[in-house]
Amino acid sequence: MTGRSIAIPVEEIRVAHARIEPYIHRTPILTSETLDAAFGSRIFFKCENFQKSGAFKVRGAFNALLSLSREDAARGIVTSSSGNQAAAVSLAARARGVSAYIAMPKIAVASKVAAVQRYGGNIVWVESNNRIPTSEEYDATALAIQEETGANLVHPYDDLRTIAGQATCALELLEEVPDIDYLLAPVGGGGLLSGTCSTAAALATGTKVVGCEPEKADDAWRSFQEGTIVPQIDPQTIADGLRTSLGEYTFPIIAANVSEIVTVSEDAILRSMRLVWETMKIVIEPSAAVPVAALLEKKISGHADRIGVILSGGNVDLDSLPDWPELSTE
Amino acid sequence: MTGRSIAIPVEEIRVAHARIEPYIHRTPILTSETLDAAFGSRIFFKCENFQKSGAFKVRGAFNALLSLSREDAARGIVTSSSGNQAAAVSLAARARGVSAYIAMPKIAVASKVAAVQRYGGNIVWVESNNRIPTSEEYDATALAIQEETGANLVHPYDDLRTIAGQATCALELLEEVPDIDYLLAPVGGGGLLSGTCSTAAALATGTKVVGCEPEKADDAWRSFQEGTIVPQIDPQTIADGLRTSLGEYTFPIIAANVSEIVTVSEDAILRSMRLVWETMKIVIEPSAAVPVAALLEKKISGHADRIGVILSGGNVDLDSLPDWPELSTE
Repeated sequence: MTGRSIAIPVEEIRVAHARIEPYIHRTPILTSETLDAAFGSRIFFKCENFQKSGAFKVRGAFNALLSLSREDAARGIVTSSSGNQAAAVSLAARARGVSAYIAMPKIAVASKVAAVQRYGGNIVWVESNNRIPTSEEYDATALAIQEETGANLVHPYDDLRTIAGQATCALELLEEVPDIDYLLAPVGGGGLLSGTCSTAAALATGTKVVGCEPEKADDAWRSFQEGTIVPQIDPQTIADGLRTSLGEYTFPIIAANVSEIVTVSEDAILRSMRLVWETMKIVIEPSAAVPVAALLEKKISGHADRIGVILSGGNVDLDSLPDWPELSTE
Repeated sequence: MTGRSIAIPVEEIRVAHARIEPYIHRTPILTSETLDAAFGSRIFFKCENFQKSGAFKVRGAFNALLSLSREDAARGIVTSSSGNQAAAVSLAARARGVSAYIAMPKIAVASKVAAVQRYGGNIVWVESNNRIPTSEEYDATALAIQEETGANLVHPYDDLRTIAGQATCALELLEEVPDIDYLLAPVGGGGLLSGTCSTAAALATGTKVVGCEPEKADDAWRSFQEGTIVPQIDPQTIADGLRTSLGEYTFPIIAANVSEIVTVSEDAILRSMRLVWETMKIVIEPSAAVPVAALLEKKISGHADRIGVILSGGNVDLDSLPDWPELSTE
């Protein structure tokens, strides 16, 4: 097997894109002269914070749901999520007129719980003694719902339909900005990252894909180093979308196609979030700030003239913002 | 004199636009299905928070500075400002390689002071015993600087070059979205509002222009009712860009061309700011939230299918955000 052969085929990614296109936004790609000067590269920000439901997750959710036959879809859809996947699946289910069941942790961000309720999703709380649930606890709750309701299980990241959907984000970015040296995406369970490197493997062989994750949830980095899935236990990072572990589908795609995985500090995540809010005047959530933090902490090997950054979402709880660290980019 | 004859001629606005176009951003016009549903109208947000220096003020600043001969410009430029005008003039002066002198109050938002320093502007503090300065105190400081340096005085709003520049914002909006029923702009000293209604008077005679201001800085509303300039004393509003009083040039244009002036509560300003941040994922400052607050509080007379809203700026001090009031739009 050659390295780049393990990936979602680009034909499937194109089919997914055509399938979901009527239901999602083609999000803008923004640039900032101030940040270009600060980081010394031209940076292209793919703004999935402007995506429907406020995050890239609707891409995979719509692709999975629209892949189902009408009979299958009618039984509803079940997923597990700390928040963005939950809202995305609820929104997709409402668009198709079917039920959504979501296994959510009680420690989920309030605004994300509210979004699920607004979209009509049915929440089932994951029991985890007020800890952040493990992947096993999420999966067990989702399976129990599936057995009870007969709904279709769509894994939030470890599902080829989900990954093909998330891959369409890089497809749009690389169509509009083909010649980038590095493409940075955050990595939690790896749905977005495995999709991103699948797209790049087919369309941008000269582009290095870099996975970015919090030091305090560094299972992807450890898995990448050790060559096997190392599960994440109790990840205490503010990046609530990146606390999950890599899966059976996402890990091999990432291992074969990603150039490097870099980790960033909690302080850098917050400073990057502040930097983007203040400079670009857009709201991004902590998970989306992680690739920016990799630039801020100069974690990427080598120099790049042109860098693509996927800003994965913008769902923030304004009632519990952290104290902002001071900025010092100049 | 007919009502609409007192306005900046549209030819001057077009000349201003051609003059400043190479130096400013053509800012995007965003829409939000969620907010359309909440307010029951189709709303077009002209996003001057994405403008250079983070606010519409660069339009007037560049127009004034680029109107000067090379000899005049070389003597520098002096203005007074609580923040956005200060940064805008500093940026414009740097672009033309001349000095900027700014009369600023000590109570200015820290991020706005930092922006002036970053752009190389020279700050002279307005003495006001830690109160918000009056227009007279601002003007006296600016005049003193002018006498000492020989720099060109450009009033932050009560100057026809400034007004013509600010008028280009509505020009871009109405070019792209011609058929709107209402056009909402915030009003402080009235530079943006008098420019906006000048443009609308020429290009969109069916569009009603509405000035929106905080109840706690309601001098425009009182001036509009009484038919003469009523100065603002010690305005305790969070909308730091709207604390100034109408001027000799801005008042008559507004009085002759604006459909109505509406006032909004501080609570509504904060709730609207939160609503825009959370829903549209863009950062707007309190002054920019004032027209949104007018929609939230249903202050506009009559119904409108299509509404234009100028989001005037996005410069916020993240270190001193207020407690967010709860949202209840649904």
